[in-house]
Amino acid sequence: MRQIITLTTDFGEGYYVGAMKGAILNICPQACIVDITHQITPHNILEASFSLRCFYSYYPSQTIHLVVVDPEVGSERRGIIVSAGRQTFVGPDNGVFSLVYSREEVDKVICIDSKQNFGIPVTPTFHGRDIFGPVAAWLARGRPMESFGEKIEDYIVEPRLSIQKVGENLLEGTVIHVDKFGNVITSFSPEDVSKLLGQTGTPKIFINGEEVSRQYQFYAEAKPGEVFFLIGSSGYYEIAAYGKNASAILDVDCGKKIELEFSKSQDN
Amino acid sequence: MRQIITLTTDFGEGYYVGAMKGAILNICPQACIVDITHQITPHNILEASFSLRCFYSYYPSQTIHLVVVDPEVGSERRGIIVSAGRQTFVGPDNGVFSLVYSREEVDKVICIDSKQNFGIPVTPTFHGRDIFGPVAAWLARGRPMESFGEKIEDYIVEPRLSIQKVGENLLEGTVIHVDKFGNVITSFSPEDVSKLLGQTGTPKIFINGEEVSRQYQFYAEAKPGEVFFLIGSSGYYEIAAYGKNASAILDVDCGKKIELEFSKSQDN
Amino acid sequence: MRQIITLTTDFGEGYYVGAMKGAILNICPQACIVDITHQITPHNILEASFSLRCFYSYYPSQTIHLVVVDPEVGSERRGIIVSAGRQTFVGPDNGVFSLVYSREEVDKVICIDSKQNFGIPVTPTFHGRDIFGPVAAWLARGRPMESFGEKIEDYIVEPRLSIQKVGENLLEGTVIHVDKFGNVITSFSPEDVSKLLGQTGTPKIFINGEEVSRQYQFYAEAKPGEVFFLIGSSGYYEIAAYGKNASAILDVDCGKKIELEFSKSQDN
Repeated sequence: MRQIITLTTDFGEGYYVGAMKGAILNICPQACIVDITHQITPHNILEASFSLRCFYSYYPSQTIHLVVVDPEVGSERRGIIVSAGRQTFVGPDNGVFSLVYSREEVDKVICIDSKQNFGIPVTPTFHGRDIFGPVAAWLARGRPMESFGEKIEDYIVEPRLSIQKVGENLLEGTVIHVDKFGNVITSFSPEDVSKLLGQTGTPKIFINGEEVSRQYQFYAEAKPGEVFFLIGSSGYYEIAAYGKNASAILDVDCGKKIELEFSKSQDN
Repeated sequence: MRQIITLTTDFGEGYYVGAMKGAILNICPQACIVDITHQITPHNILEASFSLRCFYSYYPSQTIHLVVVDPEVGSERRGIIVSAGRQTFVGPDNGVFSLVYSREEVDKVICIDSKQNFGIPVTPTFHGRDIFGPVAAWLARGRPMESFGEKIEDYIVEPRLSIQKVGENLLEGTVIHVDKFGNVITSFSPEDVSKLLGQTGTPKIFINGEEVSRQYQFYAEAKPGEVFFLIGSSGYYEIAAYGKNASAILDVDCGKKIELEFSKSQDN
Repeated sequence: MRQIITLTTDFGEGYYVGAMKGAILNICPQACIVDITHQITPHNILEASFSLRCFYSYYPSQTIHLVVVDPEVGSERRGIIVSAGRQTFVGPDNGVFSLVYSREEVDKVICIDSKQNFGIPVTPTFHGRDIFGPVAAWLARGRPMESFGEKIEDYIVEPRLSIQKVGENLLEGTVIHVDKFGNVITSFSPEDVSKLLGQTGTPKIFINGEEVSRQYQFYAEAKPGEVFFLIGSSGYYEIAAYGKNASAILDVDCGKKIELEFSKSQDN
């Protein structure tokens, strides 16, 4: 069976991705390389982690997920291999896997011994090509993860999604992603909201001075341009404007603080 | 033989595409997934249909083309599987296949019974991942299309390319696509023009107040920056400016109305 | 073993790439197609050549690299197949392979006889789909390169990277690439600098009126926002600003002239 390796980076389109794919195929020409995205905002570890969280579980077990968003490349930051949820993850130990840790039982985490010879000189600025890609390729060829280094327990488990209780019925969170349609994905999931506030039902969301209180099941239920929210395909509350760009209408972007509240009088 | 599945969506780069690819590979790990584009303008069904029309026929027979531009996702709009031109097409029944219908004899169209269990919960907002991707994957594994639902005849055959006779020698059409070079692809094909006007030869094209009357065979025949037209690689008249961006020079974009005329005195 | 075909073009995302991939897979369905980039600046031959130079050597031997940046398509410009460095290159003879020639011993160059029938009509505007893609696919299927045409010696070997001595300790070069992080890649490699100036060590780089004299090994060594240079992952001096966009800070883009100097008093 073909070994699948997915790629999630902030490299942008261009020869960086091309070189990393080459380094993988040079070791494991049979690998099935799957581009997820190379457009993560430069150095945005939380965005990479959230993206990973939204796709990895759809892949067959034993898939290898390579995530390279790596602002500290060349420094003492460690590289790791993670086994969790019947999948394998390879990348820097900077929190890019934090949202996997918060969701899966972690089987083990190995610290990649970067002194290991991967057959080409290792530059201090491109470990995606020189270390992580080759490690993923050797894993795809069947080399056991233990052979790459020692097991560690103190891997970095932050950043997590920002969500906290700031009032009796009030939560504070952030915009975690804006998609190409302008849909605004929040850090609030119905499960977390229910856990923190002890309520279910239809809340109100406050964002950039606007109140969004209408909830639908799907986009086309709304009138064209109407701003509303729904439970998005990844399981988080998402603010949309049918046929329009909600992010532009609300003038918000990634990282924006938002609030969610249940009315006191509500029958939830 | 590997089964090829092509992907054409308006998802943009990111985890939506990643999740859909995972859903496919989870069912059919041997599939050869080919990215066409994920940059269709959000909800632009005609653009998706035109893009499909310009590439599908180059693929081996039995290729599966997945097209997900789906503004009505979650509503009562149907999902369909189309067999035509020795290829298979999967997507919403909203007209994304209209330019295939206008060109190929349609073998059959099956309405996907969305109640069918695809092994994961079906969300109301992401049928690319939850229904269409899995259907394409099961087709790739050899499941017969009849097993997904009933045959239908009333599938949606619009939108078609806009082209109509508005004078003795005059046609009205639209800009159907602007490519990365700024080339302006029109809805006029020489065949349609000849059919509607009974003339062949070199017409004039009127666009945003400008007349373009010079025709060449290839781009580098023109002087740098000269605006002209040619018969593009997909078989439609295309306005270009060698080494420059014709779309910017003429200040036109997708959807712009244009006219095409043969001079009365012309010897065609 | 699967034959790998890499794709480097200026087509942008869309159906052009989709059609070219179809033309390849129609001839060689087993090919492993690897997208490098389709975002080369339109008609920028040097950028394509530099990109190729930065990734091809990471691929397994016998990989086929298809490079289609082809402003003169349809004219008398030739199409070629190049065998060099145990790899095969296919594309127009307009200099896109010039930085391969400057680095590898060229085994042979074949001029593609474009009259050869590739099974579909050859349009004058899209040889990527109609000629180069099919040629790459037939090569992938094992057809010997000699069967495509005659050997030539007068293939085009320009453009090369601009770097020249303009003073006793002074070199002039250009910005050759700006990546998604805003890192500014120059045409100066330490090897060339040492060859031309007879000095090694830490030079100064002058760019858009600014002097950059601090060198680090990796990005995170610098203070956030500090402008410095390092030897980039492709072996060229690169100007960066840790966590910031150096290209924006310095207000420079591709093609910008720059200078490199060693101080007279330096102990190198």
